Amino acid sequence: MIKTPYLLFLGDAPDQLAAKVAQGIKDWRPENAVGQYRMDGCKADLGLADMTLQEAKDAGAKTLVIGVANRGGVISQEWKKVLVMALEEGFDLASGLHNLLKDEPDLVAVAEATGQELHDVRIPEVEYPIANGKKRTGKRCLAVGTDCSVGKMYTALAMDKEMRERGMKSTFRATGQTGILITGDGVPLDAVIADFMAGSVEYITPDNDEDHWDLIEGQGSLFHVSYSGVTMALIHGGQPDALILSHEPTREHMRGLPDYQQPSLEVLRDTALALAKVANPACQVIGVSVNTQHMSEGDATSYLAQIEEDMGIPATDPFRFGAGKLVEALAVI
Amino acid sequence: MIKTPYLLFLGDAPDQLAAKVAQGIKDWRPENAVGQYRMDGCKADLGLADMTLQEAKDAGAKTLVIGVANRGGVISQEWKKVLVMALEEGFDLASGLHNLLKDEPDLVAVAEATGQELHDVRIPEVEYPIANGKKRTGKRCLAVGTDCSVGKMYTALAMDKEMRERGMKSTFRATGQTGILITGDGVPLDAVIADFMAGSVEYITPDNDEDHWDLIEGQGSLFHVSYSGVTMALIHGGQPDALILSHEPTREHMRGLPDYQQPSLEVLRDTALALAKVANPACQVIGVSVNTQHMSEGDATSYLAQIEEDMGIPATDPFRFGAGKLVEALAVI
Repeated sequence: MIKTPYLLFLGDAPDQLAAKVAQGIKDWRPENAVGQYRMDGCKADLGLADMTLQEAKDAGAKTLVIGVANRGGVISQEWKKVLVMALEEGFDLASGLHNLLKDEPDLVAVAEATGQELHDVRIPEVEYPIANGKKRTGKRCLAVGTDCSVGKMYTALAMDKEMRERGMKSTFRATGQTGILITGDGVPLDAVIADFMAGSVEYITPDNDEDHWDLIEGQGSLFHVSYSGVTMALIHGGQPDALILSHEPTREHMRGLPDYQQPSLEVLRDTALALAKVANPACQVIGVSVNTQHMSEGDATSYLAQIEEDMGIPATDPFRFGAGKLVEALAVI
Repeated sequence: MIKTPYLLFLGDAPDQLAAKVAQGIKDWRPENAVGQYRMDGCKADLGLADMTLQEAKDAGAKTLVIGVANRGGVISQEWKKVLVMALEEGFDLASGLHNLLKDEPDLVAVAEATGQELHDVRIPEVEYPIANGKKRTGKRCLAVGTDCSVGKMYTALAMDKEMRERGMKSTFRATGQTGILITGDGVPLDAVIADFMAGSVEYITPDNDEDHWDLIEGQGSLFHVSYSGVTMALIHGGQPDALILSHEPTREHMRGLPDYQQPSLEVLRDTALALAKVANPACQVIGVSVNTQHMSEGDATSYLAQIEEDMGIPATDPFRFGAGKLVEALAVI
């Protein structure tokens, strides 16, 4: 678990998009973001207070989070000067970069000397158990997609926010690096060893209050041949009570697989529900989340209305129209 | 890839069952087994020639395979004396033990000094790619089970043997440690990192002759919540042309999961086939393999006949009645 709140390190980000992890933290957990640290030439700006390490420390920040992609896959010497100073000032470091903090001997040495922690959220920090399939208390919701990268994480985060605002008990359960940095906790499921995948999902969604919802971040797709095993482990390890179908209607083929087409929402519904019932016979498909960013508002509205008519369950784009419909659909379970 | 043929190390096996890996090698790849090495007190006997290291070397053996379970999870000093001598005599070592050869500093040091290889088949030795889903030439068959440990490996090995005897082109593709030791090659799928599972299955079943069959060793079950993700990766990475349904009819619950029941063969057929068609629309379910070891011969025969009547596909117990029926069913694809 990563100590919060954070100082968000934007480094020398070449543009706003390069800082999308930091943006996600600020958007979804503003209480975790006390300020931003920008180096000379940084072209990103989150609209947070620019802080020195000392100012952030005084404001209560515990971890410097690398919220920006690095260029060329290398942690530059300019970055390292800041990272070393941060360790010496008493910050932990957290990163989702491909090249690990723990693979940098100088950072490791300073972290050891100062007693600070290095968190590489691409790598599991826990020895997960093998799944035992035992029924757990509390409720769980999982988004499953017709494809990868169709808005499953966004859907879960938006529902979690809506539920908290309504005074419902909910926890977003991160299963990927961005989600882990946003919340400070979770499992990097794509990096877990095969035998422990479902067990890791059980581990992050333990027994809870009967009226508490875990909103589990989805990964991959049952219909994406590269990653379907990861999705399967989420469905069986998460033993969801509620499934949400996620879709992006304008894709010409499955992401990264030119020879593969997305399934229909009906096929996704029937396939995912049958598999989910193995672990939880009471599971229901309660709604549809559509990423309509490439559609006009009129097209999006009529597309969603058509889904509702065809399938008889609520459909929305939580980014465009809010997650209220999906949260209301959860409430009946 | 492990160099063959082998000298099979039985150590101080307390009984025959402790040497079941060595027995599997001798049963399925007798050409890989030039002899056995037994220490004082060994209670197992494969019926192979007892050889000294020098005799085995002269007979062409390249690798000493630990074909026996060790007691207490420790590689004893008595074993180590033999293992070190074997390295010094020019043998590689191969092991499927939980405690790794590579975690024993003395063995590592001698292996480095002698230039010999240590193979721990529980650990992947390859950096596998992410699956690309591209259609490959040649044909592939996969056994999928109603549960774990219902005879999927045995079915594939028996079919491979039968096909070779009939002059058909086939290769058993190991996905678990015993299978890897038997054949000298394969992927320890349960130890692969999630994102690379399907890619590792693609890797071990590459393009081949149009009339060549890969007989892929199955793992887990779509209905076993602990391991279903591994099975999913086999179905999508393997892109099988033919599925075989494997079943053990006398189980009272799923292996290790007292609250879970096995699905019917019909449910397994429909679930696995629909998922397999994502990667290979031409896939067919061609037969049923039943482990009847806990049934009388009469009961087994009538049980198999009933399946054939109900499902309209051949059903057999390949251990009891041979794999001929399944191989003949493949031939029509």
